[in-house]
Amino acid sequence: MAELVEITDPADPRLGDYRDLRDVELRKHLEAEHGLFLAEGEKVVRRAVEAGYHPRSFLMAPRWLDGLADVLDRSDAPCYVLSEDLAEQVTGFHVHRGALASLERRPLPSLDDVLAGARTVLVLEDLVDHTNVGAIVRSGAALGFDAVLLAPRCADPLYRRAIKVAMGAVFALPWTRLPDWYDALPDLSGRGFTTVALTLAPDAVPIEDAVSGQGKVALVLGSEGHGLSARWEQAADRRAIIPMARTIEHGVDSLNVAAATAVACYVTARR
Amino acid sequence: MAELVEITDPADPRLGDYRDLRDVELRKHLEAEHGLFLAEGEKVVRRAVEAGYHPRSFLMAPRWLDGLADVLDRSDAPCYVLSEDLAEQVTGFHVHRGALASLERRPLPSLDDVLAGARTVLVLEDLVDHTNVGAIVRSGAALGFDAVLLAPRCADPLYRRAIKVAMGAVFALPWTRLPDWYDALPDLSGRGFTTVALTLAPDAVPIEDAVSGQGKVALVLGSEGHGLSARWEQAADRRAIIPMARTIEHGVDSLNVAAATAVACYVTARR
Repeated sequence: MAELVEITDPADPRLGDYRDLRDVELRKHLEAEHGLFLAEGEKVVRRAVEAGYHPRSFLMAPRWLDGLADVLDRSDAPCYVLSEDLAEQVTGFHVHRGALASLERRPLPSLDDVLAGARTVLVLEDLVDHTNVGAIVRSGAALGFDAVLLAPRCADPLYRRAIKVAMGAVFALPWTRLPDWYDALPDLSGRGFTTVALTLAPDAVPIEDAVSGQGKVALVLGSEGHGLSARWEQAADRRAIIPMARTIEHGVDSLNVAAATAVACYVTARR
Repeated sequence: MAELVEITDPADPRLGDYRDLRDVELRKHLEAEHGLFLAEGEKVVRRAVEAGYHPRSFLMAPRWLDGLADVLDRSDAPCYVLSEDLAEQVTGFHVHRGALASLERRPLPSLDDVLAGARTVLVLEDLVDHTNVGAIVRSGAALGFDAVLLAPRCADPLYRRAIKVAMGAVFALPWTRLPDWYDALPDLSGRGFTTVALTLAPDAVPIEDAVSGQGKVALVLGSEGHGLSARWEQAADRRAIIPMARTIEHGVDSLNVAAATAVACYVTARR
């Protein structure tokens, strides 16, 4: 079972994994270098461990020990116990629901493995907002999608905020990085998927028409600001739009990418 | 036209409206007391002014003056000009896209006014997350809903983060507070709306069935954690669910409230 280690000094070197969590750039470097990610909150910590990720350590205030007792019982990683004030000094932010865990990343599965048996997949190009990535993975899981594929530059689904917004769905839904950006969509078409790009392009058809009667469908989503690259928009088999009620000429009354994805997943699941 | 006032001291008392923007509790007090709200980013500032809200002042770094020149030309409020570093010292955070405005709130319209001619409305009970409120208003506007009604304790749509996530749709879509929580839904039924509560209750029917063939529809949404109150869940004419593919017994593979609302709005708009 996890050894409980009481911490009284916020500069304790054993807390390195948890330091300066608000500094996104520093974290990206640290997490890539050391191959770790952080789970936050009792439910999400539990789900990460139950999904088979190996904890490097836990960090929590005393009152969260009981709720995670069974998880700690089954782990040999140390659990750093400290006051909520100290935790805030170390991490730089108010720890949501008191508990954190640092876990080891695993090698990403191959595209073949992720796509084996899959009938509906989400394909994310260059999303930058971890909240959107998390929300999209959560919607995909809830609406029965089988996998998520990420372009090489898409934001990390194992970033703390993405995991939290996804409520841990990033552990349940298989995902991986696409090895090749340029030919990613033709490759999916070659594997029998109809690639459907969500876009405001002039030749976009309503999403219901785009997916109607299709067997295997890959929904393709672009970045928050500029949407899909020209390459991906053109390489997709179909271009589709969520029909909206108001003109979007002022660029405001449109759906954000997470809301559009939820609608598109719903429609695709019922095609 | 707006007078440009160069600021070199972050403690300048004229910047009171913009101080400590990260302190949610302080802001709630200040904004209620002084009847103000803040718009952030060039597009959102422009949209607030064009919607008729009266600016108390603007605050921006020099490089944003050009983009908002026409807005400043038409205003008699002062524009505080300062470096981005100083702006961050005053506000306590990195100002997104450089420009802020403090604007006067207006008296909320009456329920009668907001509902005049409305056929589809969103009704939010006790949502606490400003991001969700903003995302829901944006989806409602994009998918052609006519109004948003808020229970007395629902989070403020004019809070800075809600406005930002809504991309200013809170200025375009009519909204108001419900005067009475307890009888809010029966009152809407009395006005000819079919009130449809989104819930995981055992007698919930798929959302498509719940809205099919209905004339005036009010979609009713509960808080992020606990959903609707028992009173509202029972008082609604119908209870509806977004059919999901996976079991939700672990409480994780469900849609979040903003994603569920986007789907429900889409289905309702096409009923």
